[in-house]
Amino acid sequence: MSLLKKNETQVRVIYADTDAMGIVYHTNYIKWFEIGRTELLREMEVVYAEVESSGYYLPVTEAYCHYLLPARYDDILVVQTVISNVRRASIQFDYQIRNGGNGKILAKGFTIHAFVNRKGTIVRVPRDIMEKIRKWEESTSGE
Amino acid sequence: MSLLKKNETQVRVIYADTDAMGIVYHTNYIKWFEIGRTELLREMEVVYAEVESSGYYLPVTEAYCHYLLPARYDDILVVQTVISNVRRASIQFDYQIRNGGNGKILAKGFTIHAFVNRKGTIVRVPRDIMEKIRKWEESTSGE
Amino acid sequence: MSLLKKNETQVRVIYADTDAMGIVYHTNYIKWFEIGRTELLREMEVVYAEVESSGYYLPVTEAYCHYLLPARYDDILVVQTVISNVRRASIQFDYQIRNGGNGKILAKGFTIHAFVNRKGTIVRVPRDIMEKIRKWEESTSGE
Amino acid sequence: MSLLKKNETQVRVIYADTDAMGIVYHTNYIKWFEIGRTELLREMEVVYAEVESSGYYLPVTEAYCHYLLPARYDDILVVQTVISNVRRASIQFDYQIRNGGNGKILAKGFTIHAFVNRKGTIVRVPRDIMEKIRKWEESTSGE
Repeated sequence: MSLLKKNETQVRVIYADTDAMGIVYHTNYIKWFEIGRTELLREMEVVYAEVESSGYYLPVTEAYCHYLLPARYDDILVVQTVISNVRRASIQFDYQIRNGGNGKILAKGFTIHAFVNRKGTIVRVPRDIMEKIRKWEESTSGE
Repeated sequence: MSLLKKNETQVRVIYADTDAMGIVYHTNYIKWFEIGRTELLREMEVVYAEVESSGYYLPVTEAYCHYLLPARYDDILVVQTVISNVRRASIQFDYQIRNGGNGKILAKGFTIHAFVNRKGTIVRVPRDIMEKIRKWEESTSGE
Repeated sequence: MSLLKKNETQVRVIYADTDAMGIVYHTNYIKWFEIGRTELLREMEVVYAEVESSGYYLPVTEAYCHYLLPARYDDILVVQTVISNVRRASIQFDYQIRNGGNGKILAKGFTIHAFVNRKGTIVRVPRDIMEKIRKWEESTSGE
Repeated sequence: MSLLKKNETQVRVIYADTDAMGIVYHTNYIKWFEIGRTELLREMEVVYAEVESSGYYLPVTEAYCHYLLPARYDDILVVQTVISNVRRASIQFDYQIRNGGNGKILAKGFTIHAFVNRKGTIVRVPRDIMEKIRKWEESTSGE
């Protein structure tokens, strides 16, 4: 199942995110992917903090980022997130980070997450989460 | 109780630690303080991972750092740590970070830690830890 | 010169900010202080990125944080920042971080910054920045 | 050109690296990749700090990590790094991070780096760096 609806969230680059090359250190884009997927899930009424308290975790099993152009101090970035694949026991999110000022795409990437229970055993995507994802995708408020 | 014996541990500055000013971002020194106190405790045979599995935690209640000179990419730093104060329910560590190449002092600071149990209640410093601290201080292998 | 007007900025705790104790790792509060002072300065029309391109830097010379209560994953935090002291060549910012949900104060601290030029020499606080600070303080839009 | 010789470097997991799931936060493995390639290059007598002062930079253009098993607080990790591909203007490093205690592989990944000059223009891999890589690969001290 691949979804078309997108979430867009803004982040502002702070000094802590930059490195001595004068640009954003590369792992920070992957850290911002976390903000993107959390806000996408929240928009679907899947609050990750509640997913955890109901006994499920979504550890990252794969992460990839392609860096196209550097982000710099004080830039406002737009993290665009979409669910690109839902399998029996895993979910893939695709991301695009662009400069909020000029619209240029800075980075593209994905993360894949397994569904596990408290013991760390891989489990199916819980039914209520599947429902919320379907409902959100079918809602008319999308782009 | 103030201790005189010191631990010295080295860290190498990586790109991730630097910022767009071309120097180490200031919170990283306080992160390295963690390495200093962990290695000091390990030298005393107090392995913090074991302290936790026996039900005690040492959350940071205060942290301070005075920045004197900047550290730069690829510098080797020496973190010098000493226990400067042990009270009923808290411990203070003092730190000095110097450039391993020229010996210049880059930063000085301290952290104070409370002893808490699993419920987060403040407790006395456990007796066996006090014993290990005393034993280490009295050992003749000090500076 | 001590200012009374405050800036308040929100941050949302992400997984990257937490540690194995289940709470926010202590250096992250000091990282969020950066967001507070940047937004306070922006409110005064002092954009730090422009301060730098005009040849001035404000490296941190001292940082302190007192941790009162832990912040947790997904909490919304309010960073309150005030300029508490402006001297000839340095500025002190005071911070308070509280839980945006229940209003409880989680951390309090300060940072002191020197004004330096491109060569790293300490200089007086530039006149136009002093003017903007005064103007903002005298404006009637304060609390 | 694909190289066979490996560099192995150790890192100790600190609290700052962990998250509220009780394991290492995923971007930290990619941060440790930086330590692996820096030490591999140093072993080849290519000191990255000197590469920069001679006017070349190696920004990351792609990064990927596959997470197999979690690392935890205080674990000693072994970062194994190899140069898997050298093209006209880019270099690929492959990494494997394993638990230093039980030898289990925790993560595998790669990064690709472009060679750029001070203006950010992509350039060929400098001849002296190519020479050092070849020399190191041909030396008899390998595994």
